[in-house]
Amino acid sequence: MIGSRGPTRETRVTRFRGGDRNRRRDTLVVEEPLEIRLAWVDDAGARQVEPLAITMRTPGDDFELVAGFLHGERVVSAADDLVELTYCRGARTQEYNTVEARLRAGVPFDLERMRRNFYATSSCGVCGKASLDAVHQLGCRVLGGGPTVDPDVLPELPERLRSLQEAFDRTGGLHAAGLFDPSGMAEAVREDVGRHNAVDKVLGAAFLARDLPAPGRILVVSGRASFELVQKAVMARVPMLVAVGAPSTLAVDLARRFGQTLIGFARDGGFNVYTGEERLVSSPGGGSG
Amino acid sequence: MIGSRGPTRETRVTRFRGGDRNRRRDTLVVEEPLEIRLAWVDDAGARQVEPLAITMRTPGDDFELVAGFLHGERVVSAADDLVELTYCRGARTQEYNTVEARLRAGVPFDLERMRRNFYATSSCGVCGKASLDAVHQLGCRVLGGGPTVDPDVLPELPERLRSLQEAFDRTGGLHAAGLFDPSGMAEAVREDVGRHNAVDKVLGAAFLARDLPAPGRILVVSGRASFELVQKAVMARVPMLVAVGAPSTLAVDLARRFGQTLIGFARDGGFNVYTGEERLVSSPGGGSG
Repeated sequence: MIGSRGPTRETRVTRFRGGDRNRRRDTLVVEEPLEIRLAWVDDAGARQVEPLAITMRTPGDDFELVAGFLHGERVVSAADDLVELTYCRGARTQEYNTVEARLRAGVPFDLERMRRNFYATSSCGVCGKASLDAVHQLGCRVLGGGPTVDPDVLPELPERLRSLQEAFDRTGGLHAAGLFDPSGMAEAVREDVGRHNAVDKVLGAAFLARDLPAPGRILVVSGRASFELVQKAVMARVPMLVAVGAPSTLAVDLARRFGQTLIGFARDGGFNVYTGEERLVSSPGGGSG
Repeated sequence: MIGSRGPTRETRVTRFRGGDRNRRRDTLVVEEPLEIRLAWVDDAGARQVEPLAITMRTPGDDFELVAGFLHGERVVSAADDLVELTYCRGARTQEYNTVEARLRAGVPFDLERMRRNFYATSSCGVCGKASLDAVHQLGCRVLGGGPTVDPDVLPELPERLRSLQEAFDRTGGLHAAGLFDPSGMAEAVREDVGRHNAVDKVLGAAFLARDLPAPGRILVVSGRASFELVQKAVMARVPMLVAVGAPSTLAVDLARRFGQTLIGFARDGGFNVYTGEERLVSSPGGGSG
């Protein structure tokens, strides 16, 4: 039962409702750890492997997840920086939970910096502003320009995202992230038990297809817009982020600083614009005023 | 604007709906980093301080958050293990984002083990079973016994949790976690932008009040039940976890292994029981069959 490779697993459940209880089948979303390892050849020609992070994810699209994660952390910035993505070959059956990312020789990276993202330096104080500065230090610049989008298009996007989720209807428990073009056409949709993983998967797919940066795209997410999700979108140079749920303060601050259009509460036929409203332009024949 | 100490912040937003757009005030949930540091006196009598983790959280109940985090990670197991919780005294205004937890002399802890929770060992392979074993290795044992609960009580709990959320109605963006007694009375409710933080806060409050382990309590969470949330509840020896959303496979596996009652989709007058159904017993005068 443990170690499923698919995104869902069947189980038995007792359902209580209105004083009745009955036994029935139910479908669970799979959650399993994924270990991400970096492999590279050092200056002396020796092969090195180091574990980088573990994330709890829904199996599927694992290479895209790893590519998106590494791009979001600026370990890689071009598809050629990744020579190979492979599952770790172990003696046992657990190999599908470890992905090794082999870097092109000469790709600079700072393992300690990446680990410092989780553990602070010795100075007294982290703060929201330091978090924004850290994104700037990763090489991000303001997202100037970008497409204009008809506001009538936006309320439909979450419903389209939902309709393209394969596993959600069976489990009720999966987040989704999708890339859309400015006319509202879906280009890619990925699912995961974790919001950040769904975003890594869909941006990783674009990265591996050499479609990043994506200055002409809209990223739609099924949940809330946190700092972390805005950061990933900014790193991919996606100029517009649409969330079904609420944004946080730091998400709004980060979007504003990098010129991203941030939209929240996209549901029930409406939405709120928090930053970057200049990209919303009604088409001449549209009904929006 | 950046660095708010409260749980919410006002902003201006443009609301689009039905072809109209209008400018209005909106309330955002605050998201700010919190750095957790450990302080202790070493064998030579010297004071040591080490950063342990950074979490993105909603300010408020920070000491409870840190206490719950440290208890969940088994850094501390009794309230006396924590001598003091203080904000870091810095030269600037950022001090409310760093909490220092001073450990009682002689409290054993393994900084490297805690960091290994995030970075894997050199063996090839992590897996769901290894994740379950890790919880066992932290000292967790099966939750035998515990209270019985009338199933009629359970569907009301999420609504009670929601009614006790102070900031949700203003922001629409906060998760909540609450501890309830077997009759359905709320004992404590905490909110946060992150699900795991809300759980750390409410369990940390119980820990600081010397109410952990909590073998007679029900933990109710506003979102989904992931592995991480079940782990925190198991560490606190809470025998019943009720989630408004869906559980994951690993959440169900962990609850089953440690004898916890796991309930999902607690909404619209019903719920699903995934494990530990023996704790649901209708009261003689109740209407549940």
